[in-house]
Amino acid sequence: MSTPKPHRIIENRAAPNCRRVRIFLAEKGIDIPFEQIDIMAGEHFQEKHKDMVGTFRVPVLAFTDGSFITESIAICRFFEEYSPRRPLFGKTDYEKALVEMWQRRVEFELLWPIAFVLRHGNPKMSVLEKQCLAWSEANKPRVLEGLETLNKQLDGNEYVTGPNFSIADITAIVSINFLRTIKVDISPKMGSIIRWRENLSKRISMSV
Amino acid sequence: MSTPKPHRIIENRAAPNCRRVRIFLAEKGIDIPFEQIDIMAGEHFQEKHKDMVGTFRVPVLAFTDGSFITESIAICRFFEEYSPRRPLFGKTDYEKALVEMWQRRVEFELLWPIAFVLRHGNPKMSVLEKQCLAWSEANKPRVLEGLETLNKQLDGNEYVTGPNFSIADITAIVSINFLRTIKVDISPKMGSIIRWRENLSKRISMSV
Repeated sequence: MSTPKPHRIIENRAAPNCRRVRIFLAEKGIDIPFEQIDIMAGEHFQEKHKDMVGTFRVPVLAFTDGSFITESIAICRFFEEYSPRRPLFGKTDYEKALVEMWQRRVEFELLWPIAFVLRHGNPKMSVLEKQCLAWSEANKPRVLEGLETLNKQLDGNEYVTGPNFSIADITAIVSINFLRTIKVDISPKMGSIIRWRENLSKRISMSV
Repeated sequence: MSTPKPHRIIENRAAPNCRRVRIFLAEKGIDIPFEQIDIMAGEHFQEKHKDMVGTFRVPVLAFTDGSFITESIAICRFFEEYSPRRPLFGKTDYEKALVEMWQRRVEFELLWPIAFVLRHGNPKMSVLEKQCLAWSEANKPRVLEGLETLNKQLDGNEYVTGPNFSIADITAIVSINFLRTIKVDISPKMGSIIRWRENLSKRISMSV
C-alpha cells in the first residue's frame, strides 16, 4: 500500500497523552502543525470528531489522505519509523523489548493509576468519565507502588532502561508531572526519581 | 551491549497474556521451552519469583545471561526483531502504526475490560487481585462496546488491520476466547467477528 504523509496532530495541551507525543516529536526534531480541541468542553465527544476519527480520543495524527492514527504510542511509533534518526524505542532486539516492557510498565503501573485516581475521583472529571469512586480509591496505593518501582529501576540507571533516553522516560516524566492533579508529591526518599527528574529538566523537549 | 539469547518462557497455560505469546511464536515458527507456573496457587506472588524477575507477572522471557523481559507484548516485540521473517507488527511505517493502534485499542477496550469484570467480580479471583466489585460492574458495558468496535472494524476487513494477520488479531482472538470466563456470548448480530473467528480457527497457531 502507498504510504500516506502526516498532515497535522489534533490534541489538547493539558492532556498527558498529548504531551507524550509533543515531547517525542521535540526529541526527534520533527515539526508538524498542532490543532487544539477542547476536551473539558467535550469537543472530542461530539459525533463530528468520532465520525471523522473513529473514536472519542486525543491525540490524533491526521494524514494527507484523510486517514487517522490514534493512541499516543502508535503516533510515536509512526514517527519512529518515518524518521529513524535518534531512535527512542531502542536499537537492538533486546533493547527494543526492554523499552517496550518499561514503556508499558510505567504506563500501566503509574500513568494509568494516576489517571484512574483523577478521572474517577475528581467531580470536575465527570464530564470525561462515568465515575467509579471506589476505583479511584483503589488506585491510590497503586500510584505509590508505581513510584517505588520507578525509583528502584532508576537506582544506578541514568534513564529508565539504562544509558539511553527512550519513550519509557517520556511516559515516566509525563506521569510524574501528572501527579500534581491528584496532589501527590515525590517523597524526598525517592532519590533516584529526583536525580533523574533534575537531569531531564535540562532537555529542551521538556518545555513543549 | 551484547545481545543475550532467549532461553525459556515462564508462563501459565490458562492466562490470556501467556496465550498471546504462544500464538505469536507459533505464527513465527519459533520453538522455545516453556516452564509452567501455577498462578492460581499464587506461585508468581512468591518472593522467589519476584526477586528473580522483578515483578509478580507472567509470562516471563528468560535469557541465557539471567536477565528477564516481562509484558507479553514486549516478549512478542523481542521475537519480532530477533526473527523478522513473517512480520506480525506491520511492515511500512504506516502499517506499523496501524497495528500498534489496533493492538492497543483491542487490549484496552476489550481484553482489559473482560479481565476487570472477571478479576474484580469473581470470588475465585480474589487470590489474584484486591477486588473492587464496582469496577467489575462498571466494565460490563465496556465489554459490549469493545465488541461493537471490533465488529465494526472487521466489517470489510479480512483481519483487524486489513489484509494482513497481525498481533492485533492475536490480542482480539485471545479476548474473544476469554469472554467465556465472564459468561458473555458473541451475539449473532456480530457477523464480522463470527466470520473472522471462523477464518482464524483454521490456523494451526490457534491450538497452542
